[in-house]
Amino acid sequence: MGTVSDHSEYSEPEVLFKNPQIHVKNPHLDTMEEDILYHFNLGTKTHNLPEMFGDVKFVCVGGSANRMKSFAQFIHQELALPGNMDNVTDICEGTDRYSMYKVGPVLSISHGMGVPSISIMLHELIKLLHHARCIDFILFRIGTSGGVGLEAGTVVVTDKAVDCFFRAQFEQVVLGKVVTRSTELDVGVSKELLQCSSELDDVPTVIGNTMCTSDFYEGQGRLDGALCSFSTEDKREYLRKAYNTGVRNIEMESTVFAAMCRACAIKAAVVCVTLLNRFDGDQISTPHDVLVEYQQRPQVLVAHFIKKRLGLVV
Amino acid sequence: MGTVSDHSEYSEPEVLFKNPQIHVKNPHLDTMEEDILYHFNLGTKTHNLPEMFGDVKFVCVGGSANRMKSFAQFIHQELALPGNMDNVTDICEGTDRYSMYKVGPVLSISHGMGVPSISIMLHELIKLLHHARCIDFILFRIGTSGGVGLEAGTVVVTDKAVDCFFRAQFEQVVLGKVVTRSTELDVGVSKELLQCSSELDDVPTVIGNTMCTSDFYEGQGRLDGALCSFSTEDKREYLRKAYNTGVRNIEMESTVFAAMCRACAIKAAVVCVTLLNRFDGDQISTPHDVLVEYQQRPQVLVAHFIKKRLGLVV
Repeated sequence: MGTVSDHSEYSEPEVLFKNPQIHVKNPHLDTMEEDILYHFNLGTKTHNLPEMFGDVKFVCVGGSANRMKSFAQFIHQELALPGNMDNVTDICEGTDRYSMYKVGPVLSISHGMGVPSISIMLHELIKLLHHARCIDFILFRIGTSGGVGLEAGTVVVTDKAVDCFFRAQFEQVVLGKVVTRSTELDVGVSKELLQCSSELDDVPTVIGNTMCTSDFYEGQGRLDGALCSFSTEDKREYLRKAYNTGVRNIEMESTVFAAMCRACAIKAAVVCVTLLNRFDGDQISTPHDVLVEYQQRPQVLVAHFIKKRLGLVV
Repeated sequence: MGTVSDHSEYSEPEVLFKNPQIHVKNPHLDTMEEDILYHFNLGTKTHNLPEMFGDVKFVCVGGSANRMKSFAQFIHQELALPGNMDNVTDICEGTDRYSMYKVGPVLSISHGMGVPSISIMLHELIKLLHHARCIDFILFRIGTSGGVGLEAGTVVVTDKAVDCFFRAQFEQVVLGKVVTRSTELDVGVSKELLQCSSELDDVPTVIGNTMCTSDFYEGQGRLDGALCSFSTEDKREYLRKAYNTGVRNIEMESTVFAAMCRACAIKAAVVCVTLLNRFDGDQISTPHDVLVEYQQRPQVLVAHFIKKRLGLVV
């Protein structure tokens, strides 16, 4: 069970970011006659990926399939595209693993919950964008999270994605060896998002660290799971420690998202709204309509970013 | 980052299995006025859980929502229940995180992909069964997997669920401390399943260890992900090592499933079909109709087990 760092394997992202092309880091791909993106139900022989996806400039991913469909419809409206926004169709309709919608230059994809689920999606998404010869795009995760010392409804743009020991790294096991990867995100995109939030009403936004856990209950110090062997005070102490290291929200996908984007030289940001303040409780008991409004805030923020980049607003 | 074993926290399952009641291991639950099972969109104040679920005797879980709906319809037919099998409705229709169907004494639920996704579902399922005062039930995971040295289409009933270092344990981080839990499953149920398979045509079945990984590509030694830094020979060596320790298939949920069921004294089994032999390749290129038939095999096997237990077949 050796531990190796990843620095020697992959080029430095600082250098790669100057080249707009995606960096798939797998020499075997060139030797494959066909690449089946199994969990998307797409493939290089069955689909013309450059034609379908070549113009993509913004990729937005989030946990829930319904939410990512709503986002596609919302962005259709925001970009004032022709056609009926209700007619967006699921490109992955042959499978129920993920849902995918394309609206102009924007791709909206669901990734399910947790690191393994989003990592399968990211492997296939990165290969898809590579096969489609996409250049110069930005990848956003728009999601929900628990807040740490923030009022519910606050949007957190992630500075560093940290693990449950507050380390800005992601451990990937490769053939029984632990490989450690950096989870630093693009500082420029984060700052631009914060600037965007200042131009909007009702999207209170901060930049902070995001803790990524592999469990929603014990792993996040919740007292209301099927298993719990710690006290309310133990929980509060853990959350206080997290807060003191700069953590402002907790979710379940950010570390692998940041690590894979960095390894492949993709500009990326994590934008999650907090559904509750974990210092006040564990259960999500906020009324449904309030939660729905909260969940729209990352969408509104990223839509504004996209419109500015496209020159649709100044 | 301390490491503790879990033996002192929870009673020994051997003793607990004599008591048919579920063992939720959380003293805080008794003090809660209401329990919102957020990802099911169910709650103790909004739903009469004993009335809705009190008669459940078999719980079957699997990754895909479509597949678990098909299973509910299949079991409706197999148990010759009154009413139209096409009318099964999703109990969790208010959310798209999971799908849930109840057909007589059988509950069919989807859990998404990966340990974090199934662990959220299991926390809420175990609390649901506890609130509903269910007794004497069996929990099955029916899924898909990659085979190790087996012909595609073989069903593997899990002996031990092992991690990517081939250890029969699950590491759960609780408030920044690693807690190690045993992943042993119920031997009696496994043997009964193997006996059932011998009574069926076209359900080739073996008992073997199941390796659970947190990644589908690098974590399972696949050469076709967006990232890959190892050779074909490295991959084969890792799979050979796995085979030599008794691993016969690889999937992404079994360790936490086994660990949580054991901790809560729930009789449980993992029954997964292999979609390919990983020694032969990485891509799932088998025709769709063949894959569909493979995916029905765990369903057919578990349905036969249920019918025998209910005295519908001898």
